[in-house]
Amino acid sequence: MKKGRILSGSRPTGRQHLGHLKGILENWASLQDDYECIFEVADWHALTTKYNRTYELKDNIRETVIDWISAGIDPKKSIIFVQSDVKEHAELALLFSMIVSVGRLERNPTYKEQVQELNLGDSVSLGLLSYPVLQAADILIYKADTVPIGEDQLPHLELTREIARRFNYLYGKVKENGDGEEREEILPIPEPLLAKVPRLPGTDRRKMSKSYGNAIYLADSPDEILKKVKSMITDPQRVRLKDPGDPEVCTVYDYHKIFSHPELVEECSTKCREAGIGCAKCKQYLVEMLVEYLAPIQKKRKELEAQPEIIDEILENGKEKATKIARQTMEEIREAMHLKR
Amino acid sequence: MKKGRILSGSRPTGRQHLGHLKGILENWASLQDDYECIFEVADWHALTTKYNRTYELKDNIRETVIDWISAGIDPKKSIIFVQSDVKEHAELALLFSMIVSVGRLERNPTYKEQVQELNLGDSVSLGLLSYPVLQAADILIYKADTVPIGEDQLPHLELTREIARRFNYLYGKVKENGDGEEREEILPIPEPLLAKVPRLPGTDRRKMSKSYGNAIYLADSPDEILKKVKSMITDPQRVRLKDPGDPEVCTVYDYHKIFSHPELVEECSTKCREAGIGCAKCKQYLVEMLVEYLAPIQKKRKELEAQPEIIDEILENGKEKATKIARQTMEEIREAMHLKR
Ligand code: SF4
Ligand code: SF4
Repeated sequence: MKKGRILSGSRPTGRQHLGHLKGILENWASLQDDYECIFEVADWHALTTKYNRTYELKDNIRETVIDWISAGIDPKKSIIFVQSDVKEHAELALLFSMIVSVGRLERNPTYKEQVQELNLGDSVSLGLLSYPVLQAADILIYKADTVPIGEDQLPHLELTREIARRFNYLYGKVKENGDGEEREEILPIPEPLLAKVPRLPGTDRRKMSKSYGNAIYLADSPDEILKKVKSMITDPQRVRLKDPGDPEVCTVYDYHKIFSHPELVEECSTKCREAGIGCAKCKQYLVEMLVEYLAPIQKKRKELEAQPEIIDEILENGKEKATKIARQTMEEIREAMHLKR
Repeated sequence: MKKGRILSGSRPTGRQHLGHLKGILENWASLQDDYECIFEVADWHALTTKYNRTYELKDNIRETVIDWISAGIDPKKSIIFVQSDVKEHAELALLFSMIVSVGRLERNPTYKEQVQELNLGDSVSLGLLSYPVLQAADILIYKADTVPIGEDQLPHLELTREIARRFNYLYGKVKENGDGEEREEILPIPEPLLAKVPRLPGTDRRKMSKSYGNAIYLADSPDEILKKVKSMITDPQRVRLKDPGDPEVCTVYDYHKIFSHPELVEECSTKCREAGIGCAKCKQYLVEMLVEYLAPIQKKRKELEAQPEIIDEILENGKEKATKIARQTMEEIREAMHLKR
């Protein structure tokens, strides 16, 4: 007996980096036994900012899915599917658009930030404004009751919850119970499942991101990892080997804490403070740990790359399973809304 | 050889009135031989203002379609279908939402008017804002090159044209021609076909509308027509029979000009100015003309009402034909946008 149904998704950005692994993928992988999981490759969402770079989409979807599976997302346990393969999401988003106000969407803090950050002003697209409505459709079309998210995404989930409540209020049948009336719950009100995500900065200490060029990818070769770790920002106060360092302000140490054995973490920390280890050596240790950590993922990746049809089959299978659930929900939704069929 | 392909549509408001007949339906009927016509029952559009009255939808769709066909829309010549039966419209509207700016939609004059008129303020729905994008999808998914509209709808069609141009620019292949480069035209840029629509006010001289209760319906019985014509506002200066009247400010005369034989129009006008006819008599003539005008429409309506399965078959058939065209266009659109499939 599973605890509930999870819907989570991510844009197909292409090869996944350590930020994805630690922020999303390992969390997803750990939920697969306890929950019925549905993982979405959100290609329509990708269009909200990349409508003019769609030529990358196909490759990016494939690379994303290869990394998801290599990192432990198991298509035998979970449904993995591409959003645009299930057209019903678009239909439901359209229906939801009738019961969400423009004002509510404009007050969404993530939207405000994005408009400011991308310097969009008046040119912000309808797709960017209505993005959380499509996301609500993604979640509710599977009647997911649980959504694993980070703190920063809570406002989006709150909108999904509001939409579900409003939908039930508008279209749910009135039921008599002992104390009075209540509404039939057509759509569940999903709960957030907050994940503890370790802080993993990019090699330049900014947020790890493809666009900053500061990411280490799951598919990176030992040489690439070496090069990137060498470029990592360490304690800037530690100029010479004999200067003691402060691991707490060092990117390399952030990584050690996540990827290295406890004894090594301890050793690096202590020796750094005593000037008993050079940064080059400390980085060398980290490279070894990363290469070891990524070895099984890369082994799996090689297998998948060797048989491209496997990914096609997995996505075809995911499409079928997701479509089945989505169609069933849409039947119920159209019935409740008295839509033709 | 047809002149082109037309897409036009109207919301399923239920039984159609004389305003629909003269403003839309007779124009549509007259275009069927020259153009390949596709007529859409826009039930999703109806949700933009009636999301909380969906229980009326099914009946309203049926009554609307019965009146369309009774008024001369011929399912043997034209495609008649219900918008929500062709889910691809929602998918295309979603894709278009990525390439249309919120600012552009907010500047749409019809939108501004509606927000003001319905006193919506901050509560205006996303569906109302994005309505013209769905309309663009309705038109372009059938690659309609011709759109019969009234002057007031020109701004909406202009947005459709902008979207088609922008789509072609973003996703059309670059082709070399003698003078330089041009873009493959994936979507046609549709042209308006402006119809001359006679002025036909409601019985109270305001715009004829179901919500004002001032409409004469195609299905109205002679008694109902009599009652409504009796209530019509005539020349307010003409108080007694012996006062001469001015037909140009009289609703009854507006109707005579549209529905009566030229000799009768002439007679009423002349005698009214000479106080040679009473308003009661003049109205009696109009009732006769209207009953005669509507007789063949009502005959057809009775036939259709007697066999409800005919409407189901027509809409099922329309769905199939519309879906076939829409799917073909979506294949081309997904191909051009490099979407998965
Ligand atoms: S020794 Fe290691 S932890 Fe200390 S500053 Fe250098 S790289 Fe960072
Ligand atoms: S006689 Fe006829 S046209 Fe003249 S005011 Fe009366 S109803 Fe109108």
